[in-house]
Amino acid sequence: MESFNSILKSRIHKRNSWLCVGLDISPESLGSENLVYLKEHTFKVIDSTREYAVAYKPNFAFFERWGAKGFSWLEDTIDYIGFDHILIADAKRGDIGNTAKQYAYSIFEHFGFDCVTINPFLGPDSVVPFLGKKDKGVFLLAKTSNASSSYFQDVRDGNTFLYEKVAKMAKDLNQNNNIGLVVGATASSELKIIRELSSGMPILIPGVGAQGGDLNSCMRIGNKNEISLINISRSISFAGDMSSKSIKDAASNFLNQMHDSLK
Amino acid sequence: MESFNSILKSRIHKRNSWLCVGLDISPESLGSENLVYLKEHTFKVIDSTREYAVAYKPNFAFFERWGAKGFSWLEDTIDYIGFDHILIADAKRGDIGNTAKQYAYSIFEHFGFDCVTINPFLGPDSVVPFLGKKDKGVFLLAKTSNASSSYFQDVRDGNTFLYEKVAKMAKDLNQNNNIGLVVGATASSELKIIRELSSGMPILIPGVGAQGGDLNSCMRIGNKNEISLINISRSISFAGDMSSKSIKDAASNFLNQMHDSLK
Repeated sequence: MESFNSILKSRIHKRNSWLCVGLDISPESLGSENLVYLKEHTFKVIDSTREYAVAYKPNFAFFERWGAKGFSWLEDTIDYIGFDHILIADAKRGDIGNTAKQYAYSIFEHFGFDCVTINPFLGPDSVVPFLGKKDKGVFLLAKTSNASSSYFQDVRDGNTFLYEKVAKMAKDLNQNNNIGLVVGATASSELKIIRELSSGMPILIPGVGAQGGDLNSCMRIGNKNEISLINISRSISFAGDMSSKSIKDAASNFLNQMHDSLK
Repeated sequence: MESFNSILKSRIHKRNSWLCVGLDISPESLGSENLVYLKEHTFKVIDSTREYAVAYKPNFAFFERWGAKGFSWLEDTIDYIGFDHILIADAKRGDIGNTAKQYAYSIFEHFGFDCVTINPFLGPDSVVPFLGKKDKGVFLLAKTSNASSSYFQDVRDGNTFLYEKVAKMAKDLNQNNNIGLVVGATASSELKIIRELSSGMPILIPGVGAQGGDLNSCMRIGNKNEISLINISRSISFAGDMSSKSIKDAASNFLNQMHDSLK
């Protein structure tokens, strides 16, 4: 069986794209509390970006907000995307083994995602239940894009920053070649360090666009000798007048910028 | 408006109970994959423990495993519990502000929980969106009950262990008197330290029962000058032959032990 990291790498090469489209479809951004419209907009975003994206990353919070109806919308969204793109569950789960097993079942078996974002705070035994199937992957949060990420993530364990310790833990857990890291685009110096520490592992980089991370430097650092995925959510899903054309143009422009950055 | 910590304290005094019943209803423990039976068993556990419990803690993973149908079961479970008990969302969420807002809406507005467990790894700005309503509370993970909790939680920032830093952060964020901490029953020495650091804040203590934490010492340490909740899941929900009587006896016995431990 091919490993998740290997599947991801060949998909990126085949599609010649590093673009992950984040699905954070909020009523505040759409200007409507109507679930039918939110769902229609989700499908519009998917249809308008299929040819540019290599991955989709639904953010669980935006679906959970609606309870059972929101999870039904998430199930339909996954069906609608189909099998031609990598499906990333942006769930940031993290719990003790017994509970982690249930989350792993939810994400990989019930919903059918290819990989999931995981919070490492509970240590290695909370991550192991997600790593048993070689073709299913994990992205561990190492350095997040928010202002207060430094509060814990920049603490030093001896000479090692905690975000480096996460990278080390990922490496130790990578026996099945199915683990990668999340590093915010707003943290380019940490991205450089983590890229060095995590040879062979993909990096998922959110924070470009609305959060202000620099696309060019992320692309150059993140893809040095390895692969990275650049996630863009709001700047694509709610681009311009939110028409199919605006969304398509935004996705196409971001992908062009990605190609230009590597020239 | 009364604060969450004050509401919790008066409920514990009024009911003379520290017992939180964790709802982790898995098909593996029940011996059935039938959602109808799982739901019936959940209701049986609730009915058999109402007079002993002061709080219920549904664990999201066990519901999410079933997708939309599982969230519908969670919605029904909350309705079934009603308003006489404190409702704790064991969700261990943790995300950047924009996403955290959606999770807070999901847990407090959509599902109607009184409080939620939060993973602190993303720092203070990821917790703030859950603290705006004084009567809704947060329990921050400080020291978890699993074996590898030490990997990050026991790292020292200067002379401060990370679990102590979480307690400090909770204190800083406690302006509305609506934040507490989670400390595993398997970590009694850390519980002692955190209890000293977190005056005025409740502590939620999981890990008694199936995980092997000592009930007596947790009760004595956790309730020194303050309040704590002791969570018990599997040892109540799947007690004996899983009949109403077995479940009721288990809850009653645990509550009696709690009272005895303070004599």
